[in-house]
Amino acid sequence: MSSTPTESNAEYGKKPFKRSRSHFADRITADGRDGWPVEAGRYRLVVSRACPWASRALVARRLLGLEDAISLAIADPIQDDRSWRFTLDPDGRDPVLGIRFLSEAYDARETGYPGGVSVPAIVDVPSGKLVTNDFQRITLDFATEWTALHRPGAPDLYPGPLRDEIDEVMEGIYRDINNGVYRAGFADGQSAYDDAYRTLFRRLDQVSERLADQRYLVGDTLTEADIRLFTTLVRFDAVYHGHFKCNRSKLTEDPVLWAYIRDLYQTPGFGDTVDFDHIKRHYYQVHTGINPTGIVPLGPDLSGWLTAHHRDELGGRPFGDGTPPGPVPRGEEVPPAGRP
Amino acid sequence: MSSTPTESNAEYGKKPFKRSRSHFADRITADGRDGWPVEAGRYRLVVSRACPWASRALVARRLLGLEDAISLAIADPIQDDRSWRFTLDPDGRDPVLGIRFLSEAYDARETGYPGGVSVPAIVDVPSGKLVTNDFQRITLDFATEWTALHRPGAPDLYPGPLRDEIDEVMEGIYRDINNGVYRAGFADGQSAYDDAYRTLFRRLDQVSERLADQRYLVGDTLTEADIRLFTTLVRFDAVYHGHFKCNRSKLTEDPVLWAYIRDLYQTPGFGDTVDFDHIKRHYYQVHTGINPTGIVPLGPDLSGWLTAHHRDELGGRPFGDGTPPGPVPRGEEVPPAGRP
Repeated sequence: MSSTPTESNAEYGKKPFKRSRSHFADRITADGRDGWPVEAGRYRLVVSRACPWASRALVARRLLGLEDAISLAIADPIQDDRSWRFTLDPDGRDPVLGIRFLSEAYDARETGYPGGVSVPAIVDVPSGKLVTNDFQRITLDFATEWTALHRPGAPDLYPGPLRDEIDEVMEGIYRDINNGVYRAGFADGQSAYDDAYRTLFRRLDQVSERLADQRYLVGDTLTEADIRLFTTLVRFDAVYHGHFKCNRSKLTEDPVLWAYIRDLYQTPGFGDTVDFDHIKRHYYQVHTGINPTGIVPLGPDLSGWLTAHHRDELGGRPFGDGTPPGPVPRGEEVPPAGRP
Repeated sequence: MSSTPTESNAEYGKKPFKRSRSHFADRITADGRDGWPVEAGRYRLVVSRACPWASRALVARRLLGLEDAISLAIADPIQDDRSWRFTLDPDGRDPVLGIRFLSEAYDARETGYPGGVSVPAIVDVPSGKLVTNDFQRITLDFATEWTALHRPGAPDLYPGPLRDEIDEVMEGIYRDINNGVYRAGFADGQSAYDDAYRTLFRRLDQVSERLADQRYLVGDTLTEADIRLFTTLVRFDAVYHGHFKCNRSKLTEDPVLWAYIRDLYQTPGFGDTVDFDHIKRHYYQVHTGINPTGIVPLGPDLSGWLTAHHRDELGGRPFGDGTPPGPVPRGEEVPPAGRP
C-alpha cells in the first residue's frame, strides 16, 4: 500500500497527507459470499517486500502456514511510472499470472480504474483479476476465513475474546505509528510534520511502556497487533528515522522496543520475510520528492538484529497452543543482501 | 566555510564534491608582514554558528580569551541568494561594519570577486575590507600570532613540540571527517557516497580507538586538533547522520566518542558556542538540493549532552598550566532555543 507512486511522489505536496482507502474491498471468505471462496491454489498474493502494509500479509501467511494455499509474487522494490512491476522475474513477467505490471490485474478487474496500484493485492489466478487490495482486511481474513487451510499448529492471530482490545490497540498504532511515519515523511510543511512527529513519539512511548513487562501487545501470544507494529518498527531505523525525519531517537535507543522488535524478528515467520535491501532501495530511490539524489544510505549497521533480546524472560507463549512455522519455502528466501 | 550557496546548492551535483580553497589568505600576524598586524579592536570576526569551519574560530577565540580583542558578528543561519547576511541584527545590518551582507566586505577587498562568500571571515573594521577567509589558518594564527592579546591563563592550543603530531592527526580528520561528511552528503552519486561513508567511519573508528584511553587527541591537553574534531562531531547526530546519510551509527552509539564529545561540550569555550537551532535550520533549510521540503527535523533528543561523561577519570589537564575561560561575554550567549 504505502509505496505506490500515488501515495509517495504524486500525492507528496498535497495537504495534508491522506492515505487512500482501498478501492477493491471484496473479501475471500469461507462461504464465498462475495463470489471469492477460500480455495487452495486459486489466488496469488502480490507484495513488495519493501512495503509495510504488504509485509503484514507476508508475515501472517508464514505464521498460518498458508504458503502452499496462496502463492506469492514479489514485485521489484523500484516502481516505474506504471507502478509495481515484475522485473525480478525472468523476462520481467510474473510466471503464474503472466503479466509484467500489477496494474494489468487491476485493469482486468475494472477497465480504466483511475486510482493507484497498491500492494498487498490478491489476484484470482484463473481470471487474472484483482480480488482485493484491502490491506486492513486481508490479514484478518487470512486469520479467520482461511482456517481450513491453516497448517497444523497455526496460532490464532485474532482470537475472539481479545478482538475488541486488539482492534483498539491497532487503531492507535495505525493512526499514529503505521501511518504516522508517512504523515511525518510526506508532511506538506513544518507544522504538519511537527504534529505527526509528536503524535508518533507519544504513541511509541505509550507502546514501549505497555511492552515493558508484557511480551506481546495483547494477551500472552502473538496476534495481528504485533504483526502490524512489527512491519513499521522493523523499518524504523533503516528508513523512517532519517528519510522520514522521525529522528527523536532510533529504535535501538529504546531498550524495550528494541528488545521487542528483535524478539519478533528472530521468531520464525517475521524476520524471514524482511528484506532490508528492498526496503532501503524502495524508500530512498522512489521518493525523489524527499530524496532527489536517489542515493541509498549504507547504514544503519544491522548487526544487532540477531543479538539476544531476553524477552522470553517475560513469559508469553508466542504461538499459544500451537507451534512455530517451518522453514521458508524454497524460492521465497530473502537473499543475503537483504539480511543483517 | 561549509555552508555558502556555492558549496551547497550550486556545487551540489558537480562531480566529485570539492571544497574550494580560500581565496583570501592574508595573515594577521604579530609582525604585520602581510600588512595586517595583530591589534586589539581592529578586526571583526564574522561567523555563522551553523558552520563547523567558522565554529572553530568561535571556540579558539573563547579558549584564548580573545573576545575583547576581536569583536564578533553572527550571520543569520539562513543565507539568501546574496549569501551570508546580518538579518539577526537590528535593521538587518551589522552594527560595527554597517553592512547587510558579508559579500560587501568581499567586494570592498576585491571588486567583482567571482568566488563564494564564506565564513569564517575576518574583516578590517576601519577599511571594511575582508582580510582573510582562510579557515585552515585563522585559528592557528589566533593560537600563535595573537599571543600578546591572549587572556591570562590561556592554553597553548598549538604547542611547538607537538605540532607535527597535531598536523598529522588533523590532516586525516580533515580529509575523512570534517570534509568527509560533506563528501558523503553532497556526493554526486552512489559510488562517491559509498566511498565517503566508508572512509568516514573507518577514520571515526580509528579516532575512537585512539581516544579510548587518552582524554584528548594529542598530548594530555586540549589542542587545535580537538577543536577541529569537535565542530564536526557536535553536528553529527543533529545533521550529518540523517541529512548527509552518515548513518552507520549515531555518535551516541559510540561510547568513547560520545563521552569525548560531551566532555568537550561541557568544557567552557566549547558548548557555549554551539547553537543547535542555527545548525539544524541552516543545513535543512539551505540545502534544498538534498532536502527540497526545507522541513527541519525536531530530533534528535539533545537531553544527553549535559550528562556525566567520566572522561576526567582518564586524567588529562584540559588547559595545561592554564585555566578555563570565564563566562561568555554579554550579548554572545546562545539563545535557549539553541541549547539542549
